[in-house]
Amino acid sequence: MMDLGEVTLIGGGPGAADLMTVRARDALAIADVVFYDRLAPTEGLREWAPAAELFDVGKRPGHHRVTQEDIQSMMTDAARRGRRVVRLKGGDPFVFGRGCEEVAACRDAGIPVTVVPGITSAIAVPAAAGIPVTARNVSKSFTVISGHDPLGEQELAGLAALGGTAVILMGVGTLGHTMTGLQRHGLTRDTPVGIVERGFSPDQRVLIAPLGEILGVAAEARLRSPAVLVIGEVVRLAATEPCSGEARTDTDSSPAVAGEQVIRAMAGAVL
Amino acid sequence: MMDLGEVTLIGGGPGAADLMTVRARDALAIADVVFYDRLAPTEGLREWAPAAELFDVGKRPGHHRVTQEDIQSMMTDAARRGRRVVRLKGGDPFVFGRGCEEVAACRDAGIPVTVVPGITSAIAVPAAAGIPVTARNVSKSFTVISGHDPLGEQELAGLAALGGTAVILMGVGTLGHTMTGLQRHGLTRDTPVGIVERGFSPDQRVLIAPLGEILGVAAEARLRSPAVLVIGEVVRLAATEPCSGEARTDTDSSPAVAGEQVIRAMAGAVL
Repeated sequence: MMDLGEVTLIGGGPGAADLMTVRARDALAIADVVFYDRLAPTEGLREWAPAAELFDVGKRPGHHRVTQEDIQSMMTDAARRGRRVVRLKGGDPFVFGRGCEEVAACRDAGIPVTVVPGITSAIAVPAAAGIPVTARNVSKSFTVISGHDPLGEQELAGLAALGGTAVILMGVGTLGHTMTGLQRHGLTRDTPVGIVERGFSPDQRVLIAPLGEILGVAAEARLRSPAVLVIGEVVRLAATEPCSGEARTDTDSSPAVAGEQVIRAMAGAVL
Repeated sequence: MMDLGEVTLIGGGPGAADLMTVRARDALAIADVVFYDRLAPTEGLREWAPAAELFDVGKRPGHHRVTQEDIQSMMTDAARRGRRVVRLKGGDPFVFGRGCEEVAACRDAGIPVTVVPGITSAIAVPAAAGIPVTARNVSKSFTVISGHDPLGEQELAGLAALGGTAVILMGVGTLGHTMTGLQRHGLTRDTPVGIVERGFSPDQRVLIAPLGEILGVAAEARLRSPAVLVIGEVVRLAATEPCSGEARTDTDSSPAVAGEQVIRAMAGAVL
């Protein structure tokens, strides 16, 4: 009887090839099969996983090319045939990555499964735009929440009450609902909001504006997914003195990544 | 005149040597000086940074061996003397890592500074104990908050209203205040709570109990810092079917790390 293979779920990080972990690279190096997602870092994949068959199972918005069930079947089938399977995801598998479901699918199929954490875009994308999610005497908490479905009243109230940093993923489609809701629950119109579009890509853009103006700024800039939304006083640090994820010293306006465009509509900041 | 050096602030991740990023290892490989923290991964540091002078500037609770100001002066002084300086931290530099202050100190001193994000313990430590911070149909948000100072009423109310996962770092000293406060704001006594003590170390321990019983369980287990607290329905997944960060298939009770001790006091789970 054939030996059972295994599945390794890997968080590939926010997009830069060298922001993968050493453990992730080690798993890829011995992989027989790799199933990778749309937002996973793949530019060097052929080289990192030289012996592996590579399958793109990325789901584009509105185009469910491969269903979640199909992905899980392919993974477990390959492992059952004795193969070392890597499931390569963007970010971290347990931050809206359906990691828990894929672990359960492996367990149900009797397949050994390991999870390798990755750097979540929820923290690293704001950082690359000069926004720290926490900062001493500015914010002692951050909440990461999915904006795929409109936020409920309790959630909006909770974010407003917490008074820390709110990071919203998949929130472009519900941006208007979120911004009006947060104002209804007490956030002032001048609360700074930062939006990082296509973080870590060559065409990363950063929009910074007060809550009361961000909808107009986003419409004018024709904001599109994927984007990470950040709401809270920490955004002001990026507007005035970026805690950048990339080298920048003598000027605040140098881009954090090549080609980055920064649109600022904050009082006192470069417009 | 001597060429100016540079400072690289590195998030070293949750503690396992191979959960550092490739970018972090690349920066260490060419470092002239490394200033490392108490919770940074250091077991292979001599090998990763073969040419560097290594300085332990870790601050132990109650023993401020090197002040924050001293660290910043040493970093900028070394860079001013033309050296490639690495500041190695645990977790991510912008998650309670004082990264923003250190970036500001470098900028004020005119030193080029780069930040390399790391895997935050706030997500990876729960994952290693089988707790995903988000899970479809269970939790669509997570809040990471410092428990160093007692949480305020607004913060407690916000966490309760959000209804997602709460992750509290540095929260052992204020555990009683937090647990009674969350109940006062509406969380029920049976809300599952998980505490991961010394995550990623050989003596990692996991305590799982309902909110109404966790203080007793923690006292009996003589809980100590450092520990990551997780509150919310996702903890139930660890109590019943762990979404483990390590391989485990046929049994729920196999430890996630060598020597790990799991103490469960949840109804329906192994005690």
